[in-house]
Amino acid sequence: MKIKQILLAARPKGLPVAEDFKTETATLPELQPGEVLVKPLYLSVDPYMRGRMNDTRSYIPPFQVDAPIESSGVAEVTASKADQFKPGDKVMSTAPRPFLPWATAAIFPAAHLRKVDDSIPLTHYLGLLGVPGLTAYFGMVDIGKPKPGETVVVSGAAGAVGIVVGQIAKIMGCRAVGIAGGSEKIKLLTDTFDFDAAIDYKGNPDMDSAVAAACPNGVDVYFDNVGGDISDAVARHLNFFARVPLCGQISLYNSTEVPVGPRIQPILVTRSILMQGFIITNYASRFGEGVKQLAEWIKAGKIKYTETIEEGFDRLPDALLGLFSGKNSGKMIVKV
Amino acid sequence: MKIKQILLAARPKGLPVAEDFKTETATLPELQPGEVLVKPLYLSVDPYMRGRMNDTRSYIPPFQVDAPIESSGVAEVTASKADQFKPGDKVMSTAPRPFLPWATAAIFPAAHLRKVDDSIPLTHYLGLLGVPGLTAYFGMVDIGKPKPGETVVVSGAAGAVGIVVGQIAKIMGCRAVGIAGGSEKIKLLTDTFDFDAAIDYKGNPDMDSAVAAACPNGVDVYFDNVGGDISDAVARHLNFFARVPLCGQISLYNSTEVPVGPRIQPILVTRSILMQGFIITNYASRFGEGVKQLAEWIKAGKIKYTETIEEGFDRLPDALLGLFSGKNSGKMIVKV
Repeated sequence: MKIKQILLAARPKGLPVAEDFKTETATLPELQPGEVLVKPLYLSVDPYMRGRMNDTRSYIPPFQVDAPIESSGVAEVTASKADQFKPGDKVMSTAPRPFLPWATAAIFPAAHLRKVDDSIPLTHYLGLLGVPGLTAYFGMVDIGKPKPGETVVVSGAAGAVGIVVGQIAKIMGCRAVGIAGGSEKIKLLTDTFDFDAAIDYKGNPDMDSAVAAACPNGVDVYFDNVGGDISDAVARHLNFFARVPLCGQISLYNSTEVPVGPRIQPILVTRSILMQGFIITNYASRFGEGVKQLAEWIKAGKIKYTETIEEGFDRLPDALLGLFSGKNSGKMIVKV
Repeated sequence: MKIKQILLAARPKGLPVAEDFKTETATLPELQPGEVLVKPLYLSVDPYMRGRMNDTRSYIPPFQVDAPIESSGVAEVTASKADQFKPGDKVMSTAPRPFLPWATAAIFPAAHLRKVDDSIPLTHYLGLLGVPGLTAYFGMVDIGKPKPGETVVVSGAAGAVGIVVGQIAKIMGCRAVGIAGGSEKIKLLTDTFDFDAAIDYKGNPDMDSAVAAACPNGVDVYFDNVGGDISDAVARHLNFFARVPLCGQISLYNSTEVPVGPRIQPILVTRSILMQGFIITNYASRFGEGVKQLAEWIKAGKIKYTETIEEGFDRLPDALLGLFSGKNSGKMIVKV
């Protein structure tokens, strides 16, 4: 069977460009007993994927040059030589490799797939009940530990993780302040997602005063998705005993040299602040708890969600590149 | 009664100099009922005191210009109008202001003093069983959480806190690696205090390779007393899930501008590392636990200690300045 797939053509230097990807056709072998043929329906693009394009030590192995890109996704079974699956089943791949290749079809051993309940929108598995929702949940509950009345600031607030962080902050009785780029996103945060305040970093010459104005009692939890100058401005307003879940540093992912900036350690020492990097797979053994709580909040109408859906397999590289210019509101997904 | 006292003459810019201090004579008022007259025997000089010379928000209020410097100390009662104390008693002052003024004598309300057991060397109250010992203990037990077989690196290793950190690491079954300046200190760490390896940062053009060589399995706990370039070199070798108790940043305390360096956040994110600033008063409610455990280790011969004792009241400013050029091995104390 002929398929189309998208490969990493070259390791990008700095911001990735279209030429770092290439599309080719390939042939899948015959389906063997115990195997399942699937067709990706929705593929996720996520900021962490930039890191996998480098050949550096991180929490997931790097992509290989001339091999298909892979990402989270929901697929449909189109043929099966395994009893557990039949055509039409909606599936996701499981740990230790919970990804689908960027291909129009793929073969998996049955043991590496799990069925998903298709009575809820399938894209939720890539968003609220998937990596972004669980990332927001565990970063807040396990590291941020917000207490009622505290101020929670989240950067990348209009992104897939950020909008959930802000809503969890509100559920926990906190003041929620989001930082995002552009008036449309700012309006989305305060009007649709009930943030108490939102700061537009684009073209803002004085982020320091903006953070001070939005956080009259300082910052108790800073959920950091972006790093760089924006985080420097927030850092100056961190309170004694503040907690900083470090979820991402998207502003630095395309740096070609070691990023330099004001040292954060003196602030952490003098104010007894905790800063902790994390990745969602650290919490794999507690995913059930997270999914259960998030599903309850969704049912109770306490968490809303937004997605940006691009259409067409060929749009995958563009959708990924779009993350770095902030094209998405909420989770960015490609409908294959 | 005439006394001699040492005041802050001016807020230093950068490294403090002798002219930032001044000595003057003053007259103490008559002792009132409920008050106690004490004569400082031993006064401590500590790196954190540099921070108190600036007029900035921190965990202790700044020193005031033209007011006496103050620090931890052990004193002897010379006259008492309070039943609880009699001349000859050895005392320390208590929270919320656990300091003695840099003066040849001082008056305290009895409620602000506590007797200390003088059957053990009095200087231990400023060292092993005082702020430095407790700082090492809680930084390790509460933040560093070393597990047997892990590698613990401590900077400022030959300082009052550092030598205790290394020995706790050994007690806990870890590889202990110290970073200090000068061959004498390096020898002290490996020969007297049983560190597994020690790195001399002075004149070392390649700290990166030195850390790699001393830590073949990477670094699991980095107890940071110094910050700056030394810490940058260690950071590159931090393992996944490493813990970084931030105790001090002495290399940066004399900076006149915001110190700049490689951003640490990308390392923390990609390796799920925890970094936490702390100050010993955070653990005030658990001091009893710490003193008990440290005393047991001392009795069992598991912790040794060293002090640098300068003699003479007038040596106080010089002793404090000496900390910033690394003149001390272990706790720096002035015998008044």
